[in-house]
Amino acid sequence: MSQHVVVIGGVALGPKTACRFKRLEPGAKVTMLDQSDVISYGGCGIPYYVSGDVSDAEELCTTSFHMVRDVPFFDEIKGVDVMTRTRAESIDRAAKKVQYTNLATGEKGELSYDKLVIATGATPRRMNLPGEDLPGVHYVSTPHDAERIRQSISKGQIGKAVIIGAGFIGLEMAEALTDMWGVETTVIEIFDQIMPRLVSPTLATMGRKHMEEQGVVFRMGESVKAIEGDGKVQRVVTDKGVLEADCVIVSVGVVPCDDVAREAGIECHERGGILVDDHMRTNDPDVYSGGDCAIIRNHITGQPLFLPLGSMANRQGRVIGNNLADGDSRFPAAVGSFVVKLFETSLAGTGLSLEAAEQAGFDAFSVMLVQLDRAHFYPTKELMNLELVVERGTRRVLGIQGFGSSGDAMVGRINTVAAALHFDATIDDISNLELAYSPPFASAMDILNTVANMADNVLREINRGVGPEEFEKFWAAREDGEYCFIDCREAGDAKPYMERNPEHWHNVPQGEIYKRLDEIPEDKTCVLVCNTGARSYEAQIMLTHKGRKNVVNIHGGMASLKKYGIEL
Amino acid sequence: MSQHVVVIGGVALGPKTACRFKRLEPGAKVTMLDQSDVISYGGCGIPYYVSGDVSDAEELCTTSFHMVRDVPFFDEIKGVDVMTRTRAESIDRAAKKVQYTNLATGEKGELSYDKLVIATGATPRRMNLPGEDLPGVHYVSTPHDAERIRQSISKGQIGKAVIIGAGFIGLEMAEALTDMWGVETTVIEIFDQIMPRLVSPTLATMGRKHMEEQGVVFRMGESVKAIEGDGKVQRVVTDKGVLEADCVIVSVGVVPCDDVAREAGIECHERGGILVDDHMRTNDPDVYSGGDCAIIRNHITGQPLFLPLGSMANRQGRVIGNNLADGDSRFPAAVGSFVVKLFETSLAGTGLSLEAAEQAGFDAFSVMLVQLDRAHFYPTKELMNLELVVERGTRRVLGIQGFGSSGDAMVGRINTVAAALHFDATIDDISNLELAYSPPFASAMDILNTVANMADNVLREINRGVGPEEFEKFWAAREDGEYCFIDCREAGDAKPYMERNPEHWHNVPQGEIYKRLDEIPEDKTCVLVCNTGARSYEAQIMLTHKGRKNVVNIHGGMASLKKYGIEL
Repeated sequence: MSQHVVVIGGVALGPKTACRFKRLEPGAKVTMLDQSDVISYGGCGIPYYVSGDVSDAEELCTTSFHMVRDVPFFDEIKGVDVMTRTRAESIDRAAKKVQYTNLATGEKGELSYDKLVIATGATPRRMNLPGEDLPGVHYVSTPHDAERIRQSISKGQIGKAVIIGAGFIGLEMAEALTDMWGVETTVIEIFDQIMPRLVSPTLATMGRKHMEEQGVVFRMGESVKAIEGDGKVQRVVTDKGVLEADCVIVSVGVVPCDDVAREAGIECHERGGILVDDHMRTNDPDVYSGGDCAIIRNHITGQPLFLPLGSMANRQGRVIGNNLADGDSRFPAAVGSFVVKLFETSLAGTGLSLEAAEQAGFDAFSVMLVQLDRAHFYPTKELMNLELVVERGTRRVLGIQGFGSSGDAMVGRINTVAAALHFDATIDDISNLELAYSPPFASAMDILNTVANMADNVLREINRGVGPEEFEKFWAAREDGEYCFIDCREAGDAKPYMERNPEHWHNVPQGEIYKRLDEIPEDKTCVLVCNTGARSYEAQIMLTHKGRKNVVNIHGGMASLKKYGIEL
Repeated sequence: MSQHVVVIGGVALGPKTACRFKRLEPGAKVTMLDQSDVISYGGCGIPYYVSGDVSDAEELCTTSFHMVRDVPFFDEIKGVDVMTRTRAESIDRAAKKVQYTNLATGEKGELSYDKLVIATGATPRRMNLPGEDLPGVHYVSTPHDAERIRQSISKGQIGKAVIIGAGFIGLEMAEALTDMWGVETTVIEIFDQIMPRLVSPTLATMGRKHMEEQGVVFRMGESVKAIEGDGKVQRVVTDKGVLEADCVIVSVGVVPCDDVAREAGIECHERGGILVDDHMRTNDPDVYSGGDCAIIRNHITGQPLFLPLGSMANRQGRVIGNNLADGDSRFPAAVGSFVVKLFETSLAGTGLSLEAAEQAGFDAFSVMLVQLDRAHFYPTKELMNLELVVERGTRRVLGIQGFGSSGDAMVGRINTVAAALHFDATIDDISNLELAYSPPFASAMDILNTVANMADNVLREINRGVGPEEFEKFWAAREDGEYCFIDCREAGDAKPYMERNPEHWHNVPQGEIYKRLDEIPEDKTCVLVCNTGARSYEAQIMLTHKGRKNVVNIHGGMASLKKYGIEL
């Protein structure tokens, strides 16, 4: 048992570790220090405070039973001594001491420890651009940031906002500003998609289109060069133009705070972050770390992973708490599950996107499925898009990402695959996954089973399809005569499209393929489309059976094309 | 490749097998026979048709793109020959022939097969009681049953209904009759809980209480002796009384239809059902079976399992289709996931309940957790109840069951554990499960992580708690002076309870335990209660640290007591 545990950092991992350890060792002494005056807050809640969903900033710092997690709370309820506005300056590992400065008084002091926990977190990445420190330029990190942004909005000072970065926080802030405050909001992203590398360009486009429909403006593939203004922010200058702005929110990621650790000789990653083993121990057996300042391992790739999420910090904090009390708890490698709500839809995923899988050296492919999230005869149901990423050869599932409007239902599917990823599941495992079935909650063959079956069919080469991105290219070339577009639905469904595109849109219902084979040209690439891809797949099988080779079916069908923004 | 595949049975597994096989072998011949005139229907949708949620019975027999799955559909769209109203009478395995009777004409005939699939399904279990065949007594199995029930209700002929059996179908029908038609509905169950063996008595009571609040009457532990009436049903006689009834629905389970198989020497289970291996093959290598007539294996116990669910049939059908086309697909042992919607709540689970685990010989225990399903500061959130069943020693998770009002959110958690069960997960795996986190969808420490942590704390013996059932016993004995009830919440929360129970309800907020130790008697069993069990657990740790031994905390706290129906 550790006599005195010192915890540097009091936001997420720090408090979790301290409290867990105290529950196991109620007689031990724990001292937690943090340079801020607010501790133990839910930083992930900031966009919801800015939007007004959370009415009082204090709620981000309370327990589920409405007690504020402040210094007296930790003292009386948790038995943890807390020193706020106290910055850890250095660690003397030989003497097992932490030197600190009281930021209020300037006083210096030191704390002896038996075990040390470094929970210094991360700090918003700065862009190092002119004007970055002008009033009205905000980062989204602490409750103080949240207060500042909400105050300026609620005073009606913000007509136009520019958000730099289309990751989680940027998108959540864009929703908050647009939805609740009617601020004209533009998101600038240096990559050509939102949530780069996390989801495919196709899913990203679907998410972006939905946000555009709600009034958010996106400028993709655009790079910010300067922020300008006279005494306060007035405009953002990019490589493509100038945007007026009363408010700029910079959300271009975070960097781990590892200075104190690094200077004390704690091993860090070359690109930042404290290295830990699966017990969350650093290279010094008396020093633990975790949360946003630590580097863990990616279960899928085996490579180092920086995954700054409050959920990670909480789970890791418990592991450290156990190990401080002479336990043998492990935090296994992570798979990287995520979800972001975008107005009435959400994007979610776990494991690797196709791009990330290819970058990691996997021989991977992905399939995109559109299917109803519950029984088709049940009155309330929604189409869900799931993209499964699979390694050829091993049939191992590397990841899954999704876009849809029924959030809990989609997140449930993503979490189910997350659990399976930890056990290196193959598509055959997912094909037979036993999801709880009842018409109000799932189809008899759930979308998760089907997306794995689809991957199997692609590997068998009986389903050869492409997504909306490729369809867009085919359609753009429709005058060239290389492609023949065949709608495999019944005549009534196809009719409006045939009327609008009389020369290019043809209709052969799937059930009539054999009878009307001579209507389908042999010298063109035959592009088969139906509602969601089920019938175009069957039509492809029939044509292949009749010896046709140049046949491709559109995965996700018309539903997918529509969400992607293609109008026919 | 199989030249001619004959499929006996055309509801779920049969059509799935036939269509999958045809997609792999478009040139093969498949003949499917069924004794009914309706085939390929979603029997699980019947309660939703009776309720009116599904407006037209035809919807239960259509594809997701609104085509009716009838004989011409299978012929033209799927390339499968279907013979309806055709009963398979016997199988000559030596000659590889099926003898059948056309029920419309009485004509007999036979079909030669290369491979045979027996998909004869299950039939409602009969009670063998007087009056069981009176008009107005219904089973819930086919679309014809559904039509009959809905017609009699919609004509206003039904004022009072009695449902026999509180399993899935009984409960769904109770909701349908009460919610949409205002029929006075009584459910009689021979066991003393709804969904016996599937969920714990505690969860079952929560589900029942909710249904009672919606007007459904339950008579538990009651046995039906006769159904009586003059020309049509008028009353139900039980061992405890007589109930008037214009309509009786019998839903006491189903029995597998294995007669034809058994008579042909196909190996069956002694209690019914065709035995298959993990390729869904019977003891005859040319004969496959699956769905409601087959017996599979329970992954958790290794024992035979009868799991008649449409979702099972669909997944197994695909496996058989693959294997008919010379594939090597497996259907692994099942974990038994389920969900049933009960008005605004649902009960769901996977794996074994505590009772089922104990009956299977496991040294098991369970923990029940009540926690919010998303961040506590997010405006829309609900308390969810999850009960995790764990094997001592190995720490293996044997099952999980839940009750809650946000259906998709709960089903998502159940499915996540279902995936983990297939890989023999331990509580340590669940503790670190990486659920996608964002305040609108989860807590940073998700309820699934917490319920595993709770099991760990119980095994460490630092959390010693009981549920509402035991609390009820303690409370009933409150005059005996053996128990001291301590509310660990803040004074304001405890006040109304202290006012109503001045002699028995005490208040020591968790943070004041050490200061007010002398108020807590040493000679009584100290029963600690808070909102959901988080603070009573911490209070227990504090009291234990001070040497107190007789301390028990109420898992799920006041939230759980309330849902269980205990009024204080």
